[in-house]
Amino acid sequence: MNIPKGYRFGAVAASFKKQGKLDLGAIVSDTPAVAAGVFTTNKFKAAPVLQCQEMLNTGRKFSGFLINSGQANACTGDLGRANCRETLNLAAKALDVPADELLPASTGVIGAQFDMDKWEAAMPGLAQSMTVDSAENTAKAIMTTDTVHKLAGVTVSLAGGDVRLLGMCKGAGMISPKMATMLSFITCDAAIDAAAWKAMLVDCVDRTINRVTIDGDTSTNDSVIALANGASGVDVATDEDRELLRGALHTVLEELAYKIVMDAEGGTKVAFIEVSGAQSDADAELVARAVGNSPLVKTALFGSDPNWGRIICAAGYSGAEFAAEDLKLEIGGVLVFQNGTPEPGDMDDLLGPIMRKRDIVIGIELGTGPGACRLLASDLTREYISINADYRS
Amino acid sequence: MNIPKGYRFGAVAASFKKQGKLDLGAIVSDTPAVAAGVFTTNKFKAAPVLQCQEMLNTGRKFSGFLINSGQANACTGDLGRANCRETLNLAAKALDVPADELLPASTGVIGAQFDMDKWEAAMPGLAQSMTVDSAENTAKAIMTTDTVHKLAGVTVSLAGGDVRLLGMCKGAGMISPKMATMLSFITCDAAIDAAAWKAMLVDCVDRTINRVTIDGDTSTNDSVIALANGASGVDVATDEDRELLRGALHTVLEELAYKIVMDAEGGTKVAFIEVSGAQSDADAELVARAVGNSPLVKTALFGSDPNWGRIICAAGYSGAEFAAEDLKLEIGGVLVFQNGTPEPGDMDDLLGPIMRKRDIVIGIELGTGPGACRLLASDLTREYISINADYRS
Repeated sequence: MNIPKGYRFGAVAASFKKQGKLDLGAIVSDTPAVAAGVFTTNKFKAAPVLQCQEMLNTGRKFSGFLINSGQANACTGDLGRANCRETLNLAAKALDVPADELLPASTGVIGAQFDMDKWEAAMPGLAQSMTVDSAENTAKAIMTTDTVHKLAGVTVSLAGGDVRLLGMCKGAGMISPKMATMLSFITCDAAIDAAAWKAMLVDCVDRTINRVTIDGDTSTNDSVIALANGASGVDVATDEDRELLRGALHTVLEELAYKIVMDAEGGTKVAFIEVSGAQSDADAELVARAVGNSPLVKTALFGSDPNWGRIICAAGYSGAEFAAEDLKLEIGGVLVFQNGTPEPGDMDDLLGPIMRKRDIVIGIELGTGPGACRLLASDLTREYISINADYRS
Repeated sequence: MNIPKGYRFGAVAASFKKQGKLDLGAIVSDTPAVAAGVFTTNKFKAAPVLQCQEMLNTGRKFSGFLINSGQANACTGDLGRANCRETLNLAAKALDVPADELLPASTGVIGAQFDMDKWEAAMPGLAQSMTVDSAENTAKAIMTTDTVHKLAGVTVSLAGGDVRLLGMCKGAGMISPKMATMLSFITCDAAIDAAAWKAMLVDCVDRTINRVTIDGDTSTNDSVIALANGASGVDVATDEDRELLRGALHTVLEELAYKIVMDAEGGTKVAFIEVSGAQSDADAELVARAVGNSPLVKTALFGSDPNWGRIICAAGYSGAEFAAEDLKLEIGGVLVFQNGTPEPGDMDDLLGPIMRKRDIVIGIELGTGPGACRLLASDLTREYISINADYRS
């Protein structure tokens, strides 16, 4: 693993989740770090999201994250905000970090209030758990319906030496990032100015984490927060270095995005929906999202059924501007439909083996415009229903 | 049944579907009737939809419908259009009606071409089946994944005497009418001018059939077509009569809309999502559709789980303009959330019995604006997945 220098990670079981699972995690930087965050566009932002936004707006540096699963602390009103601040106070004392340098994040059931006694009881254990090599435990502590923890690390060589990036995230349902529908935490040991770090994060999130959909639901708690603490001693000062670091950040976020869709609740497939030739990127995105969110496309993916008419149907109701006769559809590189007409040939034969794979590329050309969008989408399965019909019981 | 005067109905098994099921239907009026239609907004309109729009644009009168299930004749290009016209010629000859007075409609798999031999072979049987009392068979012949046929009839007393309306429809999946996601055929024996009949239909469809969602997919073949043949001898000439007839048409369409959601593929619940206090009807509709299409709300409905946070979350990402602190949520008349805070009380206890019912009213107040929308939505179940993963096999 490419663990950035100057960070410690920890996790404990605080009984927010059942069966003694890890559900409270923290990441602490030895020195305050430059921070940038991107948050949900949902009108009902969770208490920790509002808290983070308020804190990041101060423009100061931050020393780490306090993250719990099991409860989202969303739709919890003033009491939820007060509880959120109180958890930061408790953790700051236990971890020996100023309370206003800890960024909170929560995930889990919406609408329930924290049990503060559990938080208090968990603090000594959390403090004891902090080590440089337990990022895996922190990644496990933030899981809800995830079946695997999600980490991605990269080391990139800049002019002044190597810097390391480590990303972790959780997310398997309520996933349709208009911003970023999950929790994701990036640590980096480069020394970089705050504005460049923020610009890099926004740009990369928009082209990775924001281009996935599992169920079209944008959560109340989505947060991507990235720290850069400079512990590598390597300054990111030139355009070339910034471009290299941006590429590394993109790689980390792209890997996390893929891992989210791979681990979609009940999911068995990952569709790479690649729309091109649109009049604008926004039109391309409308088509990609309509196809990626269509329950009929998603169930056909699950059934490995080359029922391509459903893809065209979804493009047709997406609201994007294009001429129906210009649309060209390829599945796994096989041309299926163009000029308003199905291609000749036995599509079941041609597409059968492609549809039975886990990763399936759906290429949709809308015309000759410059607009494009690539979206990763999961399938929709009986298991998704089971998970979400019985989530709280 | 309130069978309108002057119509005959029929159906045969033409082998478009398997197992000898009825799959070809016709409705014929003894005299040409005033006609009005509303069609899918999907960019990929099926051949019969394009054909109907072209025919209705002539402003002439029409003598009936020719409807098949099993194949949608959508995404079939010029050959699909030619085949559609040829089926009208075949049926016109068999049913002794001018070919340009028969309105076509199709439903089933997208992308496959008609087998014209089957059409030709089915014509004598279709002609023989036509009687005044076989509307039920026609309603059965237009079913695809529907588990029940759907009819609704009303008799309304106007100044000049009684007139009768009969509606039939099919639809259980690919249902999210931006216009009308299904096939629906209305027959009426009133004498009414074409403009008034069209205005009535558009208005009623918009507030009934267009306000349901099963899976958010708007099909390529949606059609609501209504005939009024005047066979009752009753003229609809006064505003009062028009209002009475409009009310009767609304009742028929509302009943059909409910039946569609009741028969949702794999569905076990009907949610009545009633949004009020919005700044505009459009904003209210955004919220209603976000809630009604959310897979997480739908699976919670299926699980009878009072997981109300998912409803608020969906309202929050709907894109509608409103202040988060103004939202008020009631489920089955029980106040759950207001002022950004959950109501006190054990919601699982209070809402449990409500959530276990089949019909569930979800009331969402967004503020004090005049905008409102009522949407009927189904739940999302394992059975929906099974039906659609294996639809063609």
